[in-house]
Amino acid sequence: MLPPIFRLTFWLSLAALTSAAFTPARAEDGYRLWLRYDRITDEPLRARYATALQQIVLSTPTGVDSPTLAMAREELAIGLRGLLGPEVKITVSNRSTVELPSWAELKSWYDKYRNPPEFYTLRHEPSDRVVISSVSDIGVLYGVFALLRHVQLGLPLAQLDTTSAPKIQRRLLDHWDNLDRFVERGYAGQSLWEWFYLPEIRSPRYRDYARALASVGLNGVVLNNVNANALILTPVYLRKVAALAEEFRPYGVRVYLTARFSAPLEIGGLKTADPLDPAVAAWWKAKVDEIYTFIPDFGGFLVKANSEGQPGPQEYKRTHADGANMMADALAPHGGVVMWRAFVYGADVKEDRVKQAYSEFMPLDGKFRDNVVLQVKNGPLDFMPREPFSPLFGGMKKTVMAPELQITQEYLGQSTQLAYLAPMWKEVLEADTFASRLVDLDNARQGVLIASSPTATVAHVADGTLHQLPLSMIVGVANTGSDRNWTGHPLAQANWYAFGRLAWDHTLTSEQIADEWVRLTYGSDPKVVATIKKILLGSRETVVNYSMPLGLHHIMAEGNHYGPGPWPIANTTRPDWSPPYYHQADALGLGANRTATGSNALEQYAPQLATLWGNADTVPENLLLWFHHIAWDHQMKSGRIFWDELALRYQQGVNEVRVIQREWDSLKGLIDNERFTEVKQRLVRQESDARDWRDACLLYFQTFSHRPLPAGVEQPAHDLDYYKTSVIRFAPGHPGAK
Amino acid sequence: MLPPIFRLTFWLSLAALTSAAFTPARAEDGYRLWLRYDRITDEPLRARYATALQQIVLSTPTGVDSPTLAMAREELAIGLRGLLGPEVKITVSNRSTVELPSWAELKSWYDKYRNPPEFYTLRHEPSDRVVISSVSDIGVLYGVFALLRHVQLGLPLAQLDTTSAPKIQRRLLDHWDNLDRFVERGYAGQSLWEWFYLPEIRSPRYRDYARALASVGLNGVVLNNVNANALILTPVYLRKVAALAEEFRPYGVRVYLTARFSAPLEIGGLKTADPLDPAVAAWWKAKVDEIYTFIPDFGGFLVKANSEGQPGPQEYKRTHADGANMMADALAPHGGVVMWRAFVYGADVKEDRVKQAYSEFMPLDGKFRDNVVLQVKNGPLDFMPREPFSPLFGGMKKTVMAPELQITQEYLGQSTQLAYLAPMWKEVLEADTFASRLVDLDNARQGVLIASSPTATVAHVADGTLHQLPLSMIVGVANTGSDRNWTGHPLAQANWYAFGRLAWDHTLTSEQIADEWVRLTYGSDPKVVATIKKILLGSRETVVNYSMPLGLHHIMAEGNHYGPGPWPIANTTRPDWSPPYYHQADALGLGANRTATGSNALEQYAPQLATLWGNADTVPENLLLWFHHIAWDHQMKSGRIFWDELALRYQQGVNEVRVIQREWDSLKGLIDNERFTEVKQRLVRQESDARDWRDACLLYFQTFSHRPLPAGVEQPAHDLDYYKTSVIRFAPGHPGAK
Repeated sequence: MLPPIFRLTFWLSLAALTSAAFTPARAEDGYRLWLRYDRITDEPLRARYATALQQIVLSTPTGVDSPTLAMAREELAIGLRGLLGPEVKITVSNRSTVELPSWAELKSWYDKYRNPPEFYTLRHEPSDRVVISSVSDIGVLYGVFALLRHVQLGLPLAQLDTTSAPKIQRRLLDHWDNLDRFVERGYAGQSLWEWFYLPEIRSPRYRDYARALASVGLNGVVLNNVNANALILTPVYLRKVAALAEEFRPYGVRVYLTARFSAPLEIGGLKTADPLDPAVAAWWKAKVDEIYTFIPDFGGFLVKANSEGQPGPQEYKRTHADGANMMADALAPHGGVVMWRAFVYGADVKEDRVKQAYSEFMPLDGKFRDNVVLQVKNGPLDFMPREPFSPLFGGMKKTVMAPELQITQEYLGQSTQLAYLAPMWKEVLEADTFASRLVDLDNARQGVLIASSPTATVAHVADGTLHQLPLSMIVGVANTGSDRNWTGHPLAQANWYAFGRLAWDHTLTSEQIADEWVRLTYGSDPKVVATIKKILLGSRETVVNYSMPLGLHHIMAEGNHYGPGPWPIANTTRPDWSPPYYHQADALGLGANRTATGSNALEQYAPQLATLWGNADTVPENLLLWFHHIAWDHQMKSGRIFWDELALRYQQGVNEVRVIQREWDSLKGLIDNERFTEVKQRLVRQESDARDWRDACLLYFQTFSHRPLPAGVEQPAHDLDYYKTSVIRFAPGHPGAK
Repeated sequence: MLPPIFRLTFWLSLAALTSAAFTPARAEDGYRLWLRYDRITDEPLRARYATALQQIVLSTPTGVDSPTLAMAREELAIGLRGLLGPEVKITVSNRSTVELPSWAELKSWYDKYRNPPEFYTLRHEPSDRVVISSVSDIGVLYGVFALLRHVQLGLPLAQLDTTSAPKIQRRLLDHWDNLDRFVERGYAGQSLWEWFYLPEIRSPRYRDYARALASVGLNGVVLNNVNANALILTPVYLRKVAALAEEFRPYGVRVYLTARFSAPLEIGGLKTADPLDPAVAAWWKAKVDEIYTFIPDFGGFLVKANSEGQPGPQEYKRTHADGANMMADALAPHGGVVMWRAFVYGADVKEDRVKQAYSEFMPLDGKFRDNVVLQVKNGPLDFMPREPFSPLFGGMKKTVMAPELQITQEYLGQSTQLAYLAPMWKEVLEADTFASRLVDLDNARQGVLIASSPTATVAHVADGTLHQLPLSMIVGVANTGSDRNWTGHPLAQANWYAFGRLAWDHTLTSEQIADEWVRLTYGSDPKVVATIKKILLGSRETVVNYSMPLGLHHIMAEGNHYGPGPWPIANTTRPDWSPPYYHQADALGLGANRTATGSNALEQYAPQLATLWGNADTVPENLLLWFHHIAWDHQMKSGRIFWDELALRYQQGVNEVRVIQREWDSLKGLIDNERFTEVKQRLVRQESDARDWRDACLLYFQTFSHRPLPAGVEQPAHDLDYYKTSVIRFAPGHPGAK
């Protein structure tokens, strides 16, 4: 053995090496969402809370515990222990008197929104006791989450006293999840529902999911894909659904299922699914009764019928109303609803696709049962980065309509790109439809008459105040999956949060919600809060700029919908699945003429809007190409010609991503390295993607405009053929991807 | 406002409510595997370690840091900080002299196993300094893991001094992962490799995966499915592979890829993939050279050729050796290898399927290049719960053979049932092939002659000592996936661990490995250790008993391979895909006659074994039906007739699951509630599955035996038709499941 020679090159103190990032069990992996409950670092503030929050009263009519109140207590335990420290002793008591600040205030909420008793009141008594009241246990749980949010945000206890009630009754996430755990248009791993392992084996994640929903006030979930499989309605699967419902129930979350219209043929042994056939109606009635034996609080069915190949009543020469009402009659005795999707368009393109839903459903206004909800995507096409609102919101007056918003970013960069969607949703919710209320109130559905709604916005259609309908609902297509951080992109958690908060109260601003979410998720360092808020608030417009600016739409890659694809799709039998149908590029210009000289989709809107939007000089520039075919040399408001404006808008999108990158980089050291790196890596990809969008679209449109790129626009990295042949394979969320 | 009435029903102290299970961030979700590093609770022991482990020397020839040594330091930091507490100050130093206990000892290891310099020595100096030495950085990292394991196990420092080297050179996990993240026969979620997001976006899990591999001494990974897609060999994917290789490299883990034999046609633009066509050879050479520009330490190709529809050299009338050697020649200059799978069988069933691999490959012995490895499944069929070893291990003498073991439990209950597989693998590794060594050593490959190997076990074939071949390898088909706990079933982590430990040292016993794993994963409470070890050690035999006892095989459900399916598969064109081909049930009896009066598969084994196994009275009872057709009234060793024995064996399997349930239940309160519940739920499912196996198989075989169930066997819950029509849909890991 050789004698040892000590050549010590350096010494390292292990203490210096260790950090949270090295310890997987406590890694900042995003699992905790906005419910982090980390100890408050502002010690005087923590001490004030610790003094004031030692006695908490849960006040309900019964005054006794239930599974939901147990969850409320558990949440207080987790939350306050984390925020204040385990050394603070806290007692939680129940009592049977609901102590409300004002019955009148509550009655006005209730009359206005006809809500189930989900409100809560918070009151900080002078004796340093906090009372959380509701007439329901779930209201108390919502109050607990509100209290914990208040503390997490570091707000003064003087501002605690409040009463809050949801403006919309049914606030749902809609999962496009298949039984094999593939999520259609899902970009965060597999479905959360482990069907094969249910009902015996129940992931702890089911409760964490329901808890997250309750924390933002969501109260329902459609478990499976609108492109439905009838097997979900068979007993073997209903037992599994019941297990999920059991896990969700304490958090006030009810389950809904999609119903495949042809289920009577596929699992029922019938020869027809004709909704007017008594045997069919009887089958559905028996099936619904059976479902309620498994799930006593089952929410209802969501149906995609006669759309994109899904079966429906039209196969039997029946209307959508015939189909929906037949199911609604089966559900009504149990308090269930039918959500019938308005996203329909014919296989043969008779008229401008964006007109078809309106054409199909307007004649049915007033023909639906009380427990039917028409579920309407925010825009008339399909979740584009920007669309005008769907004209159905202004058109139908006797039909309950639920806005369907897409939280998953199918057309906005999926889970690699950043797009905070609250501004997009607010744009729709606050859009004035200019609809008048029905003068003849006898024709309106029952409901308590209220004074007036301020404007006929989409939000007031959705919350039921405009047309005083007895039911209200809003639906978000989920962006969740089995990824550890739930949403793939760490910042996409903000979209889940924002949807929930807006579903509860659509008057919150995008900025308020962003402010809350950033503080809850990244802490209250002023630089961190200001930077991430700024990044979030502009991010959707950035995606619009580098992908589909100025009202462009549906020019994304075929199938996966991820990158650019403005060129025609080869061998398609459907012109309306091919981008030129929408952008109409030619030697003269670009854009779809939907004025009276074109498809006249404008006629589906109120006259005020038709006039405003029908004129290329008065239409908002961000909808220009949605409604108008614009000449390449058209003079824009900027003074530039249209082609130059278009090109610069694409470049602007790329530039903005680079600004976001710099802003994010400035957070290094201010937030944990793990989440810092995760977003940083995604921004690298986004910048590359943004350049691809710019280059591919400008090269393609240039084959029509024959104009040079203006100064300030970078030269493309490749030729057009490169982009046309760069096919992304195995894209997540793309059915049939290969 | 009503005056408040206080009706306090009860008070709860929050402190009593909070527990680890309520705090998601620290939940016992299994992510940490066997690398938990929780603080040692035995305070005197912790103090002793804390004194002795404050100075650690990493001793390598260069004495300078590298990415691998940085990982070694990081692991020491994480590990010792966790185990000893952050208050213990520890210094780690490098030095350039390798201080080994005995060069002679090392030389003997090296000569015997011709291993790369991956050994380590640990020495606890009297001055309370621990020296970890190796001639390579990776050896030091292995030593660090060994040191940490020693401390985690609470072993005396007096037992620390050791030298350890792997007996097999290349120790690989083989992932059957597709580019869309589907894992064929994977039961733990999606593939860990997020291809769409690479190379920019790199999950922190990549490093945690490599770290887990290194911790048990594994040094390679085949990233993609043997049912291969040629796209993996295109630059867009090679860039992604290179990113993974970069993440793995510091942990000594090299990447390998499967090579689709027809790649020259599919991505190369050639008209043929004929291995003897110079253009084809040139294409592969260029492709390999290209791969090494991306991944300088690329390990090599794994090829499944002319098997189950995969393309191969036989399409061009060439042999497996022609195909393998052509690729091997391309890889040789870079030090890469070809793993050629022996799992082949013809589309037309010419002879007993279990004979085909031997028939096909024996004539090729001696015809393969030095850097070709024949990858041979442990048994001649396909990873059944019990098989005899593959006769190729005893047959081929001039060919490097790597045992392919299946860690993922395709035929052993997947991730809902418990089966600790070390006893199954040991059964194979310790099986004596009775092969003689070549007398004419000139015909043997080059290699250093050693004295003799004790017996001609499969292990000694695998480690190269029997035939003195220059290369050795062992491969395990991975059971990992995106599930938070990596393996789906929490206890299936033990199989990953056991494979790694056996790959390093096949002389370890199943019991030793189980003991280590339980202590590392669940702590050292004697009751916990004893109970879980007992559960683990019998668990594989339990699965055998309730599914395929007494040598039965291939009677599982079609396609998903999960539950029972002994009946014929309807409409199959292949008799060898239908269970009756294997069990041969008829009015006389049950089992495959593979003696000289039957298919004579026995002739492929050494004469000693052919004699022993050819006699129904001397063949081990657990292989009885593998080799013999046994009459229903055949007298068994127990004194019972065969039918009664069979039925009771099925019942015994069910009974054993119930015993496991009771044993597991006895751990309540002794381990964390989260992992307790997770396993408990799975055992409920397993008990139900076991009954299904018993009932379905006995009802079916009863249609041949026409005998009643003996006393002690429970009556079936349903009739045979129920089981035949209970199709499991959307089973995980089943390609084409619907």
